[in-house]
Amino acid sequence: MSDLRSKFLEVYEVLKSELLNDPAFEWTDTSRQWVDRMLDYNVPGGKLNRGLSVIDSYKLLKEEKELTDDEVFLASALGWCIEWLQAYFLVLDDIMDNSHTRRGQPCWFRVPKVGMIAVNDGIILRNQIPRILRKHFRDKKYYVDLLDLFNEVEFQTASGQMIDLITTIEGEKDLSKYSLDLHRRIVQYKTAYYSFYISVACALLMSGEKLEDHLDVKDILVDMGIYFQVQDDYLDCFGDPEFIGKIGTDIQDFKCSWLVVKALELCNDEQKKSLHENYGKEDPTCVARVKELYNVLDLQGAFADFESKSYEKLIKSIEAHSSMAVQAVLKSFLAKIYKRLK
Amino acid sequence: MSDLRSKFLEVYEVLKSELLNDPAFEWTDTSRQWVDRMLDYNVPGGKLNRGLSVIDSYKLLKEEKELTDDEVFLASALGWCIEWLQAYFLVLDDIMDNSHTRRGQPCWFRVPKVGMIAVNDGIILRNQIPRILRKHFRDKKYYVDLLDLFNEVEFQTASGQMIDLITTIEGEKDLSKYSLDLHRRIVQYKTAYYSFYISVACALLMSGEKLEDHLDVKDILVDMGIYFQVQDDYLDCFGDPEFIGKIGTDIQDFKCSWLVVKALELCNDEQKKSLHENYGKEDPTCVARVKELYNVLDLQGAFADFESKSYEKLIKSIEAHSSMAVQAVLKSFLAKIYKRLK
Repeated sequence: MSDLRSKFLEVYEVLKSELLNDPAFEWTDTSRQWVDRMLDYNVPGGKLNRGLSVIDSYKLLKEEKELTDDEVFLASALGWCIEWLQAYFLVLDDIMDNSHTRRGQPCWFRVPKVGMIAVNDGIILRNQIPRILRKHFRDKKYYVDLLDLFNEVEFQTASGQMIDLITTIEGEKDLSKYSLDLHRRIVQYKTAYYSFYISVACALLMSGEKLEDHLDVKDILVDMGIYFQVQDDYLDCFGDPEFIGKIGTDIQDFKCSWLVVKALELCNDEQKKSLHENYGKEDPTCVARVKELYNVLDLQGAFADFESKSYEKLIKSIEAHSSMAVQAVLKSFLAKIYKRLK
Repeated sequence: MSDLRSKFLEVYEVLKSELLNDPAFEWTDTSRQWVDRMLDYNVPGGKLNRGLSVIDSYKLLKEEKELTDDEVFLASALGWCIEWLQAYFLVLDDIMDNSHTRRGQPCWFRVPKVGMIAVNDGIILRNQIPRILRKHFRDKKYYVDLLDLFNEVEFQTASGQMIDLITTIEGEKDLSKYSLDLHRRIVQYKTAYYSFYISVACALLMSGEKLEDHLDVKDILVDMGIYFQVQDDYLDCFGDPEFIGKIGTDIQDFKCSWLVVKALELCNDEQKKSLHENYGKEDPTCVARVKELYNVLDLQGAFADFESKSYEKLIKSIEAHSSMAVQAVLKSFLAKIYKRLK
């Protein structure tokens, strides 16, 4: 596993060096140094789960057969395209959310001399994805499907981000807009496609499959992505901050979290009044009142219930799939996230 | 011509309505209304030259033959994709430049309740281009070439924007970085590909041509784009504000304008010192000193010289082209901009 990770990181260096010498642009020393630093700052510093899972999934789809060096390189390159996509979203999201830190360092736009140039850097990151795809995949039969896939997933992610942004416009904090359905919609579009579906879709395309023959795989991965985000929402409040590595602030930030929409569903009129009064406030007393209400409503129990029902439903859908190799891919994803504590 | 324009605007309404019902996303009323307003605010309000020129060019390439309704629609859809690309760049550029107005109205990010959501709106605009292409062109033989074309041109534009941004970082105003070569590079990448090349490239693809067989066309259109931007730089200082519709501020804004790089090339040490002292200052006395220097150095004469030489060179390159239809396309572009006063 650590070997896979170091091989994966070697591919990053290859891709970066190709991009810094892309013949479609006349580089200056300054611009090459700028992009070099911008990439190192924003692309490889995460957990790399999304990228690595393309290689894992492709391996499982090939069953017993050993991957060639070329296959490892191509699966890694697709994995990196997803990491690039993630970096692009994060750089721009941090600007929109006016965030301070990301992955334990200042957000890119807060680095001295970067500022609003970060908007264009986000665009550069996004534009490097088709450069990578064109360089390494243009002769593959599935090249156009890769382009369509990345375009569709980016469109869905931006659309999910849009509903999230416009339902929580500054100065219009209105809890009555929040519902389980709105939560599901935001999470499905903003997170599930690019965090779960796209990796497996890349591996399927590399294996010569057509994505329209695997619509059930898409549905399962989207459901898994929703389940993953509900866990995230749960851990933000009930997880161990030492273990997760951060202290949750979803309540203060007026987030459309699964917890608050579930609370709204379960509460009586008096409890709803308290929620409206205390949600989205910095004041620790308000935060404590919301948490108390979450306990009174037994959201830990509601979550445990959601978790076991999601798991059963996912296993059932997975086992209905005709290909054992695809089942193995989906089960490996599920195993990684089921009952996770961070 | 007005008929063409109104037909073109009808296609905008069709495309918008398709996008607002795109099945790849589960729309809410609020999100549909948001995008509807965002599109009307940002997409159709310009001069539409880039978009309309796809139809004009395609007509010329088809020579005497009348266009079918279907051909008019497809050429218009490609034209609108270019207008969408332009809208995306402008929405984000205005944020990066902290601009106030655009096309006679407040910049989109300055509209109440929009703010930084405009970053995501820019992304939405960008993502709608492949949605339009996929809906109307996925069965065409040239579909993948269209995707590659839009990707490459967007990459080049963002790269040009990058060198522009990083050579003029706030607080590092350093005139010694400016040169004719840097100016050419910024203009070529930031403006020429998406303002001149892409329209003709779209028309060529629709006509069944391969872009790699027309590299000379690309070179000519890029040169024309550079010539166009030099005119823009010239008119910013020497044009008639009443006629152009705005008062130029390139000197105050420390822009890497053709005028200042030409002045740097022509001036003696004393004049250079004055330029360094006065360029990029709001003070009207400083601006007047720069303008005076431009007159002393006879930049109007230098521009007239550049203009006639560019014209001769362009005509010569155009007439060397083997296809009379392609010659006609290129000459129609040149005729539209030669000796323009606005």
